[in-house]
Amino acid sequence: MNPPLSTPGPTLGVVGGGQLGRMMAEAAAPLGVELVVLDPTPNCPASPVVREQIVGEFDDPDAMRELADRADFLTFEIELADPDLLEEVSETAGVPVQPSPDTLRTIQDKLVQKRELAEAGIPVPAFRRADDADDLRDALDELGAPAMVKARTGGYDGRGNAPVENPDEAEAVLDAVGADEGGAMVEELVDFEREVSVIGVKGDDEVATFPVGENVHEAEILRETVVPARTSDAVRERAEAVARDVLEFLDGRGVYGIELFETSEGDIQVNEIAPRPHNSGHWTIEGASTSQFEQHVRAVTGRPLGATDLRSTTAMANILGEVDERQTAELHGVDDALATPGIGFHWYGKQEVYPLRKMGHVTAFGGSSDPDELLRKARDARDELSFDT
Amino acid sequence: MNPPLSTPGPTLGVVGGGQLGRMMAEAAAPLGVELVVLDPTPNCPASPVVREQIVGEFDDPDAMRELADRADFLTFEIELADPDLLEEVSETAGVPVQPSPDTLRTIQDKLVQKRELAEAGIPVPAFRRADDADDLRDALDELGAPAMVKARTGGYDGRGNAPVENPDEAEAVLDAVGADEGGAMVEELVDFEREVSVIGVKGDDEVATFPVGENVHEAEILRETVVPARTSDAVRERAEAVARDVLEFLDGRGVYGIELFETSEGDIQVNEIAPRPHNSGHWTIEGASTSQFEQHVRAVTGRPLGATDLRSTTAMANILGEVDERQTAELHGVDDALATPGIGFHWYGKQEVYPLRKMGHVTAFGGSSDPDELLRKARDARDELSFDT
Repeated sequence: MNPPLSTPGPTLGVVGGGQLGRMMAEAAAPLGVELVVLDPTPNCPASPVVREQIVGEFDDPDAMRELADRADFLTFEIELADPDLLEEVSETAGVPVQPSPDTLRTIQDKLVQKRELAEAGIPVPAFRRADDADDLRDALDELGAPAMVKARTGGYDGRGNAPVENPDEAEAVLDAVGADEGGAMVEELVDFEREVSVIGVKGDDEVATFPVGENVHEAEILRETVVPARTSDAVRERAEAVARDVLEFLDGRGVYGIELFETSEGDIQVNEIAPRPHNSGHWTIEGASTSQFEQHVRAVTGRPLGATDLRSTTAMANILGEVDERQTAELHGVDDALATPGIGFHWYGKQEVYPLRKMGHVTAFGGSSDPDELLRKARDARDELSFDT
Repeated sequence: MNPPLSTPGPTLGVVGGGQLGRMMAEAAAPLGVELVVLDPTPNCPASPVVREQIVGEFDDPDAMRELADRADFLTFEIELADPDLLEEVSETAGVPVQPSPDTLRTIQDKLVQKRELAEAGIPVPAFRRADDADDLRDALDELGAPAMVKARTGGYDGRGNAPVENPDEAEAVLDAVGADEGGAMVEELVDFEREVSVIGVKGDDEVATFPVGENVHEAEILRETVVPARTSDAVRERAEAVARDVLEFLDGRGVYGIELFETSEGDIQVNEIAPRPHNSGHWTIEGASTSQFEQHVRAVTGRPLGATDLRSTTAMANILGEVDERQTAELHGVDDALATPGIGFHWYGKQEVYPLRKMGHVTAFGGSSDPDELLRKARDARDELSFDT
């Protein structure tokens, strides 16, 4: 290893050019890594800061082959990437893809993901397969109701998840999560004290975890993250230990977002894993010695990992589409947010806003080591912003 | 003011696409600002991270007009920009240019710069005009020898500057600095204790200064900066006060690099001003709440300035072309530098290296609040790197 750096540097081909690709590009340039992204939306969020965008669907073999041909390394920033196609173009072009398509395959199917985690001895909430309403009713007998129904594939940002209150709702809920496409699963509703997450990264013979973040969700969508999580040292240590077990279980270099529940008894259970940088790790841009995006680029291009220590207490608040319908995005109040000392502002460059779409985020750091105060500060800055005129 | 943000966001047209343009692009994306750069070198350092590079000379009217037509705001990252042409294309296209071309004009001519600073009551070393050898010999009678001869225009990174030891060398030194092109000036050699600098920024009705940095030069080229400067509080306050006077004197929004001498008596004198982000401010990327690049983008696009406070003691070391002749750049030892905890790595994406060319920089931050230790750490990381095989 330890390859020399020259210009043009190594090209990283990324399936997906959304905000994660955009922030990856911002972090890749200082490392001398150039990005080419594949995304179906012309002028996707990453496009202004990458060498090139290939406009194409994620499952378009020609577009994927073009991406692989242009790249020295391949990765993805969305779970919608096609693992078979990734494997094929990687082999044909002789270009490594990280994380492993096998890992992507496992994670894409929430039932398989949970089953394999459980088999690896990693604590997860009780769950059952629920392909049809009869399955689901049987499962509710065992798990109790209410419970959480999840489409096995295709869901994100809360889409594909829905609570089921009682057996009579079985059909309606399966319908609502879109279970007809790839089946569904049902999970016990965890009586959690708080939701936490650990951003982990696997390198070449090394792993690292960032400090544990505490997440605030509403309607299944992440609203805020604050670091360090406002819990006990023991819980933080347990969360990190579970995250390290998860990293051990996963195959392939790269960053993983590991969402966890802290139960009311102080236990840790794995909720979901994302095989990519994660919204709950955006705080690392200002808050950690190395950002999750830089870590991902380092890991997938075979460079050593950076330090993951917290620079100072940090809070992140998402700028979501608080609108009634899809419309051209016009964000107001930007100067008010920018004029607040110690606020980082991140716009994702999306032309349209729709309800609850992730449009950007703000980060509060410095000036205090009190998580409550920084969370309040991040929220206040975010609340200066609106899509209404 | 307080314009809403939409996508595509405002486009900033930048004259020059070197490392300053590259780091400006990295900082602009989170603000929703897209860059188009004008640079004569195809695949210039900024090119992988900007929307578009226009390949053209800085004094090519057609290329400059194209840049202005593509932009909502104009700025420059090199003093070689042509102020007359900037003024003309800005007016024709109806696009504001910041800082003011007048300021660029003043700064481009080192004699005019010094004269106007002196007239504004800002402390500068004693200086004289020296158009020919007779002038120079007369000046040396007054200022004493040795002294520093500087070409009035076109110099950078120490080129265009040379010490003169005695009157007999007058012709040779004027020749060496290239005085035939735009004349020369001569300055008393300041008996300085240390070289410091302040990165200052002018916004719309507000100014801000970053903490005072201490610079280490060798052969007139900046090698390292450490912040805070290892001097007394009184000297730091004096340096900031002088920097604020300089900002008051300058016309136009944007970041300015203000190089200062701390004399052996603890006085502050202005050495030189750059009307753009400056090498001695690269530490701000990791070390300050807002980087000098983000500040420049905020200022020239009419947004409020960010906080300039120091996040932690920080040291920056330049990766210079330590080679005997121009060659394809191939940097070795990158993994060793990247594996050092708390080191930021910045590659500028230049294809060729030549003696003392600025190729990148490393930043040491965190883990200690001792400037000596961080300076040593930055140097050690930099010294892992070499262009020899």
